[in-house]
Amino acid sequence: MSGKKYVYLFADGCAEGQGAWRDLLGGKGAGLAEMTNLGIRVPPGFTISTEACLAYYAAGNRYPDGLQDQILTTLHKVEASAGSVFGDREQPLLLSVRSGAPISMPGMMDTVLNIGLNDQTVEGLIKTSNDPRFAYDAYRRFVTMFGNVVMGVPHEAFEALLEEAKRQERVQNDSDLSAEALRTLVEPMKTMVQERTGRAFPNRPRDQLRMSIEAVFASWYNDRAVVYRRLNNIPETLGTGVNVQTMVFGNRGADSGTGVAFTRDPSTGEKYLFGEYLANAQGEDVVAGIRDPQPLGSLQQLMPEVYAQLAQVGETLEQHFRDVQDIEFTIQNGRLYLLQTRSGKRTAPAAVRIAVDMVHEGLLDEREAVMRVAPEQIDQLLHPMIDPMAEKTVLASGLPASPGAASGRVVFTAEEAVRRQEGGERVLLVRNETSPEDIRGMHAAQGILTARGGMTSHAAVVARGMGRSCVVGCRELAINESSGYCHIGQAEVRAGDFLTIDGASGQVIRGQAPLVEADLGGDFAELMAWADKYRRLGVRCNADTPEDAEIARRFGAEGVGLCRTEHMFFAEDRIMAVRQMIVADEPEPRQEALAQILPMQKSDFKGMFRIMDGLPVTVRLLDPPLHEFLPHALEEIGELAAYMRRPAREVRRRVESLNESNPMLGHRGCRLGITSPEIYQMQVQAILEAACELKREGIEVFPEIMVPLVGYVEELAIVKRHIDETAERVMQELNIRVDYAVGTMMELPRASFTADAIAREAEFFSFGTNDLTQTSLGLSRDDAGMFLPHYVEHEIMEHDPFVVLDEEGVGELVEIGVERGRQTRPELKIGICGEHGGEPNSIAFCHRKALDYVSCSPYRVPIARLAAAQAALRDTEADRTSS
Amino acid sequence: MSGKKYVYLFADGCAEGQGAWRDLLGGKGAGLAEMTNLGIRVPPGFTISTEACLAYYAAGNRYPDGLQDQILTTLHKVEASAGSVFGDREQPLLLSVRSGAPISMPGMMDTVLNIGLNDQTVEGLIKTSNDPRFAYDAYRRFVTMFGNVVMGVPHEAFEALLEEAKRQERVQNDSDLSAEALRTLVEPMKTMVQERTGRAFPNRPRDQLRMSIEAVFASWYNDRAVVYRRLNNIPETLGTGVNVQTMVFGNRGADSGTGVAFTRDPSTGEKYLFGEYLANAQGEDVVAGIRDPQPLGSLQQLMPEVYAQLAQVGETLEQHFRDVQDIEFTIQNGRLYLLQTRSGKRTAPAAVRIAVDMVHEGLLDEREAVMRVAPEQIDQLLHPMIDPMAEKTVLASGLPASPGAASGRVVFTAEEAVRRQEGGERVLLVRNETSPEDIRGMHAAQGILTARGGMTSHAAVVARGMGRSCVVGCRELAINESSGYCHIGQAEVRAGDFLTIDGASGQVIRGQAPLVEADLGGDFAELMAWADKYRRLGVRCNADTPEDAEIARRFGAEGVGLCRTEHMFFAEDRIMAVRQMIVADEPEPRQEALAQILPMQKSDFKGMFRIMDGLPVTVRLLDPPLHEFLPHALEEIGELAAYMRRPAREVRRRVESLNESNPMLGHRGCRLGITSPEIYQMQVQAILEAACELKREGIEVFPEIMVPLVGYVEELAIVKRHIDETAERVMQELNIRVDYAVGTMMELPRASFTADAIAREAEFFSFGTNDLTQTSLGLSRDDAGMFLPHYVEHEIMEHDPFVVLDEEGVGELVEIGVERGRQTRPELKIGICGEHGGEPNSIAFCHRKALDYVSCSPYRVPIARLAAAQAALRDTEADRTSS
Repeated sequence: MSGKKYVYLFADGCAEGQGAWRDLLGGKGAGLAEMTNLGIRVPPGFTISTEACLAYYAAGNRYPDGLQDQILTTLHKVEASAGSVFGDREQPLLLSVRSGAPISMPGMMDTVLNIGLNDQTVEGLIKTSNDPRFAYDAYRRFVTMFGNVVMGVPHEAFEALLEEAKRQERVQNDSDLSAEALRTLVEPMKTMVQERTGRAFPNRPRDQLRMSIEAVFASWYNDRAVVYRRLNNIPETLGTGVNVQTMVFGNRGADSGTGVAFTRDPSTGEKYLFGEYLANAQGEDVVAGIRDPQPLGSLQQLMPEVYAQLAQVGETLEQHFRDVQDIEFTIQNGRLYLLQTRSGKRTAPAAVRIAVDMVHEGLLDEREAVMRVAPEQIDQLLHPMIDPMAEKTVLASGLPASPGAASGRVVFTAEEAVRRQEGGERVLLVRNETSPEDIRGMHAAQGILTARGGMTSHAAVVARGMGRSCVVGCRELAINESSGYCHIGQAEVRAGDFLTIDGASGQVIRGQAPLVEADLGGDFAELMAWADKYRRLGVRCNADTPEDAEIARRFGAEGVGLCRTEHMFFAEDRIMAVRQMIVADEPEPRQEALAQILPMQKSDFKGMFRIMDGLPVTVRLLDPPLHEFLPHALEEIGELAAYMRRPAREVRRRVESLNESNPMLGHRGCRLGITSPEIYQMQVQAILEAACELKREGIEVFPEIMVPLVGYVEELAIVKRHIDETAERVMQELNIRVDYAVGTMMELPRASFTADAIAREAEFFSFGTNDLTQTSLGLSRDDAGMFLPHYVEHEIMEHDPFVVLDEEGVGELVEIGVERGRQTRPELKIGICGEHGGEPNSIAFCHRKALDYVSCSPYRVPIARLAAAQAALRDTEADRTSS
Repeated sequence: MSGKKYVYLFADGCAEGQGAWRDLLGGKGAGLAEMTNLGIRVPPGFTISTEACLAYYAAGNRYPDGLQDQILTTLHKVEASAGSVFGDREQPLLLSVRSGAPISMPGMMDTVLNIGLNDQTVEGLIKTSNDPRFAYDAYRRFVTMFGNVVMGVPHEAFEALLEEAKRQERVQNDSDLSAEALRTLVEPMKTMVQERTGRAFPNRPRDQLRMSIEAVFASWYNDRAVVYRRLNNIPETLGTGVNVQTMVFGNRGADSGTGVAFTRDPSTGEKYLFGEYLANAQGEDVVAGIRDPQPLGSLQQLMPEVYAQLAQVGETLEQHFRDVQDIEFTIQNGRLYLLQTRSGKRTAPAAVRIAVDMVHEGLLDEREAVMRVAPEQIDQLLHPMIDPMAEKTVLASGLPASPGAASGRVVFTAEEAVRRQEGGERVLLVRNETSPEDIRGMHAAQGILTARGGMTSHAAVVARGMGRSCVVGCRELAINESSGYCHIGQAEVRAGDFLTIDGASGQVIRGQAPLVEADLGGDFAELMAWADKYRRLGVRCNADTPEDAEIARRFGAEGVGLCRTEHMFFAEDRIMAVRQMIVADEPEPRQEALAQILPMQKSDFKGMFRIMDGLPVTVRLLDPPLHEFLPHALEEIGELAAYMRRPAREVRRRVESLNESNPMLGHRGCRLGITSPEIYQMQVQAILEAACELKREGIEVFPEIMVPLVGYVEELAIVKRHIDETAERVMQELNIRVDYAVGTMMELPRASFTADAIAREAEFFSFGTNDLTQTSLGLSRDDAGMFLPHYVEHEIMEHDPFVVLDEEGVGELVEIGVERGRQTRPELKIGICGEHGGEPNSIAFCHRKALDYVSCSPYRVPIARLAAAQAALRDTEADRTSS
């Protein structure tokens, strides 16, 4: 044997490779080697390495030097182990050839079974199996598969011949065909292949083997595989391994069969051998759906010893790999062969239970358990779900915008939602799309369904923030609001009818589907406690109402990182006063309106502070452009004019004069606070009065007053001076003092660049990464729907930057802001309060950049806690590895 | 004398200080010292240094140690020089005390004259002057000034007593009051001061002097001075000098007088002694406007020898200071005293002429001459001006948005402007505000007048770009378009009437004011040639039409840095095709529309390339959101639908679906190029076909194709691939090859951060600092009018960031972009094409950051050339100083 080693034998409890060599042997090859070394019986064979694959391409699609020799030499050892010989007429060895890349690409590449059959060796197979029908069936299957996979003849061409044979024999199923019928199929099939390809079907087993191996090499570059790799970011340069293995057959009679086993239940996590078994069958038959597999229990009854062996193997593998195993096995004449083992996919509840159980069993430590559950996965656990056992009628599907299922009576307007909810009904808000004016209706509803919009539309973002289930962009929804009904797919649904949406799957379901509530105790609580032990980042919530704050505390929030005061402005009983304040040109009616709003804001803040009881609460002063609060329909403008006792024309002119071309970049945030200081003054007064009065009741309050959209330190200096003046006045009037801090939302590139100056005034920074993304990328979240999906699909962007923080652009601004801010004020408290605060990759980024906390919507708080723990553990791991 | 030296004598041709010590002596003190040392006669005196002023504050508003002694010692020397004694009853010396800061703050601080007068010394003054009326007049003036300035009694209180005296003497003017009347005024004035202040009026000359000096120290912190310093960025820590000087009197008879002289004509620059003279008067009288001064010629007739002395002094000072001098002088009994000299302010034409003349005279070298003209100033020279000699009726004023004067017939719509202009008329477009749809009308008009908008409104920006005069925000303009007239102030102006606007002053003038054309030859051309010799930055122009390109070349542009293709889309004969292209949902009508537009774009490009003849032309592919081109009025939508032969409802729906919340951050720039590649393909085809066909004619063309709004290198890679494919196809079809480059506009923060990656694809960068300002600062140019003026006025921002590049935010992004871009591609060509490309501070920034060129609107090209030269010369200067 000359040159590089390309071929790795596994046979008789001893493999040349090992489990850790995934890059060299591919996942499947490494698993086979590992199982062999563990003394588990796998059909003997060998793996051709990924290096051989790459060398094959490098040589212009030719075997590299030495490969052919190594294959033949190793094949002899396999023959010795199997006790049969490849191409032998008496005792022929049959082989399978399967791909196996370092990263799993299920179903993307090729497989050829039963290699080695021809008119001579089939006779040997008949002799050793004593079953001509089995042998001819194997033969025609081989010709079909080889002709299709290796020689490129469409599957249908073989099907046609098979159908013709069944017609002649007047039978229904393949399995009813006689041995003779199967035998006579082979020759026409080979002829057909030759006619179609111009090449003779190869009869020499060695040619068959070589062509099969080359076909697997080539399949690394088939269209499906190329697309799959691009979608999953798998480098082309990995190459695939090729596994050549002795065939075993599960279709050799009642003492044969094939199956799949999980070492724990992948739905619940319960520890027992879970799986399916099909007697006297090959894996293919299961896939083809010809016969229904039975629960594994059936194997226990049929062959108790084999079942016990399987259980034992499962235990061995789980102990060895320290994770749930998903095992493929075949039983040939009472002998158990393992074909594959890998980590088992599992549901969210199972993932949590398995991780916790394995700690209790001593298989994992707490840190490992924390790393075992994907943060995004646990989102499912936090919301009610549709009972998986229940029947349901799915009318249509949309985008799953905010998880959880919700049932309620259909309403088409926000007002109706509020009205019915106040009457004690559960409602579902169904609209073409939503706008800020719908906020109260969205809050009143159990869930929101829209016809338009994407994953970052207003409805989606707000619903996630509120923890309402939400399905958006349901194209089959057509609303006829004035007539009080809508069409969903073919069905007509009237206002007041019950409807259910599943925000995790996007399904829209007729009537009231039965729901199962979330359980936050038990294993979940235990796992989260471990997570909290290992994380460094604090986790706060974005909450605008006491109700949201309540939920967030239940989910473990350590304070409020963002309380948006503007949502409080939309309440029906105050919107008129808010509008008067905005439209009023003169100080008097404006002051009058502010005086009306003040007690309402104060009571909001009291509710919020009371729940957070001593935890910090970051209140952002009014941020959006004023015209967002104004009516635009003529009728509503008329109402406002009447309320204000002013001419409608005047009010309308004022409303129009507040319109902006690009409101996102307009007169908002602290710019309002500077040109209309009385609004912030009212808000600060409400915050401080609430805090002082609660303190008198014995409740500790720590308000952090956040000034939005600061770009120049001078802006913050002016607003801060106003805040301090108002705060001082309130505390003197009430004769009690509270601690409060003043800081800023970092949401403009210029703020990051001048963070050293801004930190002279700011006691904390909170990165508003939603707006920072909009400004850094020049991308309006409201408008990006026109091209962002195209961008993500064509991988111009790796992720939607409103979902996963863009580290190259936005991230660098965060880094600059942190560094310069702490230069001036080393103790500066820094958090993030954009949507990214609840997204695991972004949380890991915040951990690496030494932020103090993340803040996210209440329902993402547990996700953030877990993600923060994983980021910290990964960090420790990296430290350990590098030191 | 102990400790630090605070007091600097100047007397008898010898001063302890010198002209270079402005920081120590203040501007006035340094000038007096310098003149004294030059042997020019100034009234002897001394300067108390700014250090003394600062020490005075530091000591809690008390004279520092040694100051009083130094003052007295030096005063004796002044007495010796003047031949009179301070406080002496026979020959009293009178003193003036004047402020004088290192940076001129005209009129902001205090002055006291005639110090040293009391009931005794006034008798001495009568004796030496032999003029009781003069003496008593000086006395009552002193009491008034001291009482007001030093003791804080309002001026009106003194006026009242004066009026009373005039009533009693039954005279009209102060100058008609008798000596006796003046004498009897003094005592009541002193009594009034005592009553009002509770303090006796000081009669001891030394007390008067000390209190006056302290008053001048204190005036550094009066309100006016504080505000002025803040507005002009003058540090508080400079302090002021105090000049104590012998009084001289221009009101001592026919051989006395006072005047102001310029060594060259400040309007034209012509070299002769220019100024005004008032016989037998003090400077105060000139200021008070009691008598009209005469041209300096009158002095030449009255006292030819003194005039000759003055001319000689002027020559000496000009030679010494190497600049035009603005001289204040007084003649007392035939003796000429110089009171002050400083650089003379001058008009733009004068500045150019003086700089050039002084080089020819050998007074300056070319570099110095280039530094002597403020770039912004020459803007005036490039446009027609209203003949300064002409009579005119000013109806109202607005903001001077784009310089130059323009006359024309009033039109109220863009269409009317185009129609009349095509009929050969000169028109002035008068509108409430303008929008992109008005572009052609703006181009057709001589000038634009709007009722609304600020210096960065659409009208202002576009007009500057086009070099059209423009006045915006004229609040006294009320348009009644449908009735075909408007009101401007009190006047009614009908459509078709002539009107003139002056874009440099903001004036709106009735009828056709006579205009004077710009002269770009002579001195101007000579100065610009020197500027070109010393600058390193290239200067290109932003030009969208061959006409603009033509003007820019005349102004010295070295290529086109930004050709915005979208302006070409608004032409009346193509807008329908453009709209069809946008609205068309299917490929066929879209292709049909593109095919119509192609030849028009091609002919535009040919015109542009032909004029630029071998110079590079940067063509930006379509940038704005498509809906900017669409009609919004129902009627226009109907027209479009008819043109397209589609239902109006469908067209309307499509138009609405293209609406965006924040178009600035929406579906525009290369995002369009990626989702609708056929548009860019058409544009690239037009560019390349134009270039190839011209090359065949023997004209060299070097198109630089610029891709806008790139944030991800992947975007540029995709668009560039499309460009190269189209270019290759065109060149093969036409069988000729042209060089072209592909680059990108840098206008997003993310682009700067990823400039290293983007430079892999881009052959040039052009910083679009308009949009980069909008994104970095989160500031919409269209909406900033609501608060930006407030921000600039209250100094939250030092400058409007759309006018002067924000170095801290936008500038850092430019720096990062340059550095990272050149890391990847050291030869990367980098320019700037925002409005800032024509603003001198911003140009200096571009020079320091090693950009290759700036690009600006045609009329700013000369400004940019001069500013670039100054930046380079300042750099050389700094190098020389530091080495």
